[in-house]
Amino acid sequence: MSFEISKKSDLSSARLGELTTSHGVIKTPFFMPIATAGAIKGLAATEMKRLGAQILLANTYHLWLRPGENVVAQAGGLHEFMKWDGPILTDSGGYQVFSLAKTRKLLPDGVEFQSHLDGERLFLSPAKAIEIQQALGSDIVMVLDECAPYPCTRPEAEAAVTRTTNWARECKTQNQKPKRNHKSENQKLFGIIQGSVYKDLRLQSAKELIELDFDGYAVGGLAVGEPAEEMFRVLDYLVPELPADKPRYLMGVGYPEQIVRAVQQGIDMFDCVLPTRNARHGSLFIKTEESAAVGKEYLPGQYYEVIKIENEQYRDDFSVLDENCNCPTCQAGYSRAYLRHLLTAKEPLYISLATAHNLNFYLHLMSELRRHISQDKF
Amino acid sequence: MSFEISKKSDLSSARLGELTTSHGVIKTPFFMPIATAGAIKGLAATEMKRLGAQILLANTYHLWLRPGENVVAQAGGLHEFMKWDGPILTDSGGYQVFSLAKTRKLLPDGVEFQSHLDGERLFLSPAKAIEIQQALGSDIVMVLDECAPYPCTRPEAEAAVTRTTNWARECKTQNQKPKRNHKSENQKLFGIIQGSVYKDLRLQSAKELIELDFDGYAVGGLAVGEPAEEMFRVLDYLVPELPADKPRYLMGVGYPEQIVRAVQQGIDMFDCVLPTRNARHGSLFIKTEESAAVGKEYLPGQYYEVIKIENEQYRDDFSVLDENCNCPTCQAGYSRAYLRHLLTAKEPLYISLATAHNLNFYLHLMSELRRHISQDKF
Repeated sequence: MSFEISKKSDLSSARLGELTTSHGVIKTPFFMPIATAGAIKGLAATEMKRLGAQILLANTYHLWLRPGENVVAQAGGLHEFMKWDGPILTDSGGYQVFSLAKTRKLLPDGVEFQSHLDGERLFLSPAKAIEIQQALGSDIVMVLDECAPYPCTRPEAEAAVTRTTNWARECKTQNQKPKRNHKSENQKLFGIIQGSVYKDLRLQSAKELIELDFDGYAVGGLAVGEPAEEMFRVLDYLVPELPADKPRYLMGVGYPEQIVRAVQQGIDMFDCVLPTRNARHGSLFIKTEESAAVGKEYLPGQYYEVIKIENEQYRDDFSVLDENCNCPTCQAGYSRAYLRHLLTAKEPLYISLATAHNLNFYLHLMSELRRHISQDKF
Repeated sequence: MSFEISKKSDLSSARLGELTTSHGVIKTPFFMPIATAGAIKGLAATEMKRLGAQILLANTYHLWLRPGENVVAQAGGLHEFMKWDGPILTDSGGYQVFSLAKTRKLLPDGVEFQSHLDGERLFLSPAKAIEIQQALGSDIVMVLDECAPYPCTRPEAEAAVTRTTNWARECKTQNQKPKRNHKSENQKLFGIIQGSVYKDLRLQSAKELIELDFDGYAVGGLAVGEPAEEMFRVLDYLVPELPADKPRYLMGVGYPEQIVRAVQQGIDMFDCVLPTRNARHGSLFIKTEESAAVGKEYLPGQYYEVIKIENEQYRDDFSVLDENCNCPTCQAGYSRAYLRHLLTAKEPLYISLATAHNLNFYLHLMSELRRHISQDKF
């Protein structure tokens, strides 16, 4: 994987680049739609291509538990299994062990837990996290980290940083061993910086990981409940410490205006459940006028709001979901009233139409961001 | 609506024709995918076009209860609401009142019942069934009938025939009144023949409805639990009594081999929940070899089986769902293992992929049937 920066903004720390993977070149900055269990909610891989998705994120934890990484490996890897020929990033599974699994026990060499599906006792170690991701055959692999909650005490954050560095070292070691299949030959490994909102711990975590020399650096442990300003404060002092020639990934962020601001701070990569999860729950991203009191500015002079499509007011609102939108749902002319009806009637078509719309909003935002940077508007 | 028969088979009562509606010409014999609440399960109207669907069936009962026929009318009718510009047939709502609603009370002038959604007390009369379908603006409208269960006593079947004729007359009268909107100007009205498995009652019902002069004739009250042979026995003596120049519709049927046999008996129109409901529940139609013990012959020398995709044997079956299938799911190369995984993980994408496959099987069957008739193979 090579990462080439083609332009640095004069107005901010934003930058344009190209990240080359075994499955194609990705223009940065970019957003990764989440294909949790190897599928985007209600959308096929061909539809994701049409929406302009450059790379998808899949969850190691979910695929490990079901159908099992060996099934995916036998299928020829995750790309072949889900029929997506573009790049894929897999997380380490750690986040889900902490957020979904039952009865976790954190040990020096890994975490013991019970599957949220059937209660099976499992153990995730740094080496295991790498092995699973090698079996999946993703293009970008994440180290196992400990994501401390917010708020957390300084000793807790300190322990998480130490553990994260140790585990990152073990992941790196595991990754340097001979690969079990050729699919994982060109996988690139990213480190994850922890340290909560403690500046010295964040800088220590970054320093330790940079010494280990990863292919890219993720900022983890943000967007876990802290005020947004705390998050930007961390990025302010942390991003300048990261190698300029490596991609920078802000995990789990976020709202459009947060992505824009983080790009201005020098972040290249994003993932978030917001567009897909919000879609399922009836919250749709709509471009709006400055005058709208509810509108949030995300790009200069561009505003959006999130509407709750199940609201009574949309029952007989026959206007197109968003007349300024170029997504397949809006281009087909589906009305707010129809989408509300589909959601209310629990029609599966709702999820496909709503997910396509929200993901298009995010993917379009990223291409707009890239255009703004290239035109020095940003 | 005009109905032109272009060819009659020399080998059976099968016929080829063209049914002209306000929203296009339909080649007969045809199958109507079911868009219960104004949507096919997981598939957009454009996808139904691509699959080769000529006409969709929507349920009056469901749309009446939610979002309400007036919402659909305000949207400009059901075609506009669901963005399907091809023909639509709506049922009368009667079947769902008998199968879904709570605390039904059958009265001479209609049926009193409680909504299965919120328990609201409602009354469906013949005139109301027509009014709702006029508001929906479908191309083919069905009369309100009483579909007797199987088995039913002769007096019960007799009463159902009498009520069905009376209601059919009232529907016809209502349909001749000035229309509430221009969308319903060219709607065509079909009668529904009842009489259970009693030959004289079936013939009486047909005679009474033919006297009322409908645009087409449906055979109702079959595929309600009787042995398949009983159904074909009824068609044997009933179909020859129906006007040759009007389309004939066998409601709610059925398995591929049943459709083929009914076409040979002179039926032109079909609808059934099997392909869509089976898809959701993991039962997929697969073309198979004669040698396969499980295969059912449906066309000369052509066999199929229904596989349960959640079965353990498909966990690591990486072959394409059906390598002989031209549906988008199989053409994209999705494996049985992936589809099993999506179903197990309750991924919404499963419904779209499975529904497209099963509907394609049925729509392809119908085009094969038309080809067989035109080539005198049938």
